[in-house]
Amino acid sequence: MTDSQNPFGAFVPGPRAEMPGAPSGPLAGLTFAVKDLFDIAGLVTSYGHPLWAETHGPAVATAPAVLACLQGGARMVGKTITMELAYGLTGENAWQGTPTNPAAPDRMPGGSSAGSAAAVAGRVCDFALGSDTGGSVRIPASYCGLYGIRPSWGAVSLAGAAPLAPSYDTCGWFASDPEVLRRVGDVLLPAPGAGPLGPLLRPAEVWANADAEVASALTHAMTALERLLGAALTVSVAPEGLPGFEAHFRASQAEEAWASLGPWVAKHNPEFGPGVADRFAAARVMDPARAAAGRAFRRGIAARMRGLLGGGAVMAYPTSPCPAPRRDAPQDALQAVRVRTIGVTAIAGFAGLPEVTLPVARVGGAPVGFSLVAAPGRDRALLDLAVALAKEAGIGG
Amino acid sequence: MTDSQNPFGAFVPGPRAEMPGAPSGPLAGLTFAVKDLFDIAGLVTSYGHPLWAETHGPAVATAPAVLACLQGGARMVGKTITMELAYGLTGENAWQGTPTNPAAPDRMPGGSSAGSAAAVAGRVCDFALGSDTGGSVRIPASYCGLYGIRPSWGAVSLAGAAPLAPSYDTCGWFASDPEVLRRVGDVLLPAPGAGPLGPLLRPAEVWANADAEVASALTHAMTALERLLGAALTVSVAPEGLPGFEAHFRASQAEEAWASLGPWVAKHNPEFGPGVADRFAAARVMDPARAAAGRAFRRGIAARMRGLLGGGAVMAYPTSPCPAPRRDAPQDALQAVRVRTIGVTAIAGFAGLPEVTLPVARVGGAPVGFSLVAAPGRDRALLDLAVALAKEAGIGG
Repeated sequence: MTDSQNPFGAFVPGPRAEMPGAPSGPLAGLTFAVKDLFDIAGLVTSYGHPLWAETHGPAVATAPAVLACLQGGARMVGKTITMELAYGLTGENAWQGTPTNPAAPDRMPGGSSAGSAAAVAGRVCDFALGSDTGGSVRIPASYCGLYGIRPSWGAVSLAGAAPLAPSYDTCGWFASDPEVLRRVGDVLLPAPGAGPLGPLLRPAEVWANADAEVASALTHAMTALERLLGAALTVSVAPEGLPGFEAHFRASQAEEAWASLGPWVAKHNPEFGPGVADRFAAARVMDPARAAAGRAFRRGIAARMRGLLGGGAVMAYPTSPCPAPRRDAPQDALQAVRVRTIGVTAIAGFAGLPEVTLPVARVGGAPVGFSLVAAPGRDRALLDLAVALAKEAGIGG
Repeated sequence: MTDSQNPFGAFVPGPRAEMPGAPSGPLAGLTFAVKDLFDIAGLVTSYGHPLWAETHGPAVATAPAVLACLQGGARMVGKTITMELAYGLTGENAWQGTPTNPAAPDRMPGGSSAGSAAAVAGRVCDFALGSDTGGSVRIPASYCGLYGIRPSWGAVSLAGAAPLAPSYDTCGWFASDPEVLRRVGDVLLPAPGAGPLGPLLRPAEVWANADAEVASALTHAMTALERLLGAALTVSVAPEGLPGFEAHFRASQAEEAWASLGPWVAKHNPEFGPGVADRFAAARVMDPARAAAGRAFRRGIAARMRGLLGGGAVMAYPTSPCPAPRRDAPQDALQAVRVRTIGVTAIAGFAGLPEVTLPVARVGGAPVGFSLVAAPGRDRALLDLAVALAKEAGIGG
């Protein structure tokens, strides 16, 4: 499962891709790992699948997000395992191995940025880059007990990163320390937007969707947050129900995934692991009318969220409705978790919102995360709030 | 040609898209315009062609680069004309009109970010966003007498921006004042990389490619730059000749342009203005072997440039080999200028280098620009150098 060359099975097989950082800079002294969908000049990006690696030449350029970390002074210690073509939330990879969840070794690590989460949770490095389309940073952060951010859509460049569903894809990162999470943001994010955050909103349907033990375990974090932002207002964000969010997200994501990756899949006919295979099979035959309905639905939700959050409001809710599934869970159980989870992660996805997750509690021996969400562009304010909340709630790094 | 509603014909027809900025921030007090290929939530992006506007719905989200300017405190004053699908360097637009070059009204404004350059050169706003694939910011900046930057590839997010050739596309901007050019960079660019710039390199083939009067007019800027960085070393960057750079750039750009836009062009069969029509016709039938040769060539040039510039070196050369062509120039003359120009602009394009152009001289009554080029990620250092050089050379804003 784990060995000294590849602790927690976090890294892609083969020699480690290591690169020194600049001698000084805001990230000096830190180490980081990079999800293997970001290009490194001269190396082949595998995107979690050996056939992708075979059919793509060495990268011409290093992805700017990676370059900014190196130039900020951080040292890169390796490329981490992603689920195949980043299309999933469990962290499984049938080809390169499923990384171990260091915080709950009998559980899934979460994905698709599984190796990045495992490397940070296993204290192999200080932070790691991932990508988040439908939860691929937020969910492994929640499952592995880490701080994680999905920035505002487009706030951090995804140039040189393999695409999944471009209108949802974001470049996020993990850290075991909230100050480190913020320091990376200082390097990668645009300058902060002005204005204070608040009021605090509690979206009723999202809390109701969570396991009762999860909601209960997060109460102390919500109380601490109320001390910072004032009493929460309960709001309805999904009167039509979160399952509708999931269905529409799935359809419009599948349409984009097929547009981005379908030509390669159709040409090379790669073998995929079980969950990923199902999703590409569904994407291949996605009804355009369903995808169009998904896009129209999305437009409405995005407008609703802009209305709720535009003045500086912060929403707080469970990152995932349940802790990580067990590694031996059957595929149909995983699929049920996926549907419940995406109903929640689609909120930030639809509206391009920044979301920061904090490791505030454990349930049944496994971590669960607590999310802060704000309007697009408020990423840095949200990172500041996460640092303050970690202190207030006494969770730290 | 110009009226009070649409000075210098810079803006897309119809009511102006205006948006207030945040009440405070690093860009407070500044106004800006946005090339009409960046999405603004709720508005339709035209991408320079009425049929593009007809076949695309209102944007779901505002492009993060635009959002960052608004949140930085700048006020948006309108959307500016781009050449059709950004595929050209003259600034012509057969549908929305060719903007006037305020610095030389009988000359082309340069493109594809023609309206953005015209708006800033006409002092309608303080800065303007554009995009640069093969020179679409650098060339109009040079033609209109402006400061302009093509950042390191991917350094500024192009999320929410229509693509042309993604592995070359960048988000750049114009300003009439070098301090403003830098202030915008402080908001949009990642944190600065460490280390001083130098030595100064003078690429022999690029200087030889320029009109003698252009090279001569730029001598004082080169001398001023030598006072800042020490005597220039003459280097050979293109022993195979700049026409080879152009041919390989053209082939690989065409391949990507067709991959990005071909499905839309094939489906809707839009009518294009003369130069753009020729380029899409060529892209449609581009020989894959020629495009592959272009990609291979690019790889070699990118490695060469990394070797030359990796230690902090700066190259300096004429942004464009000649001043802006006259508005009544025949298409074959424009095509000849295009070939000579892209031989130079392809250098930064191939290697993803940041390039800042400064308006240091006029030749025959028209402006010509002087470019500073460095390794990827050194954008902020280059902007600092541009500010220092403007002072040293006594050109200012």
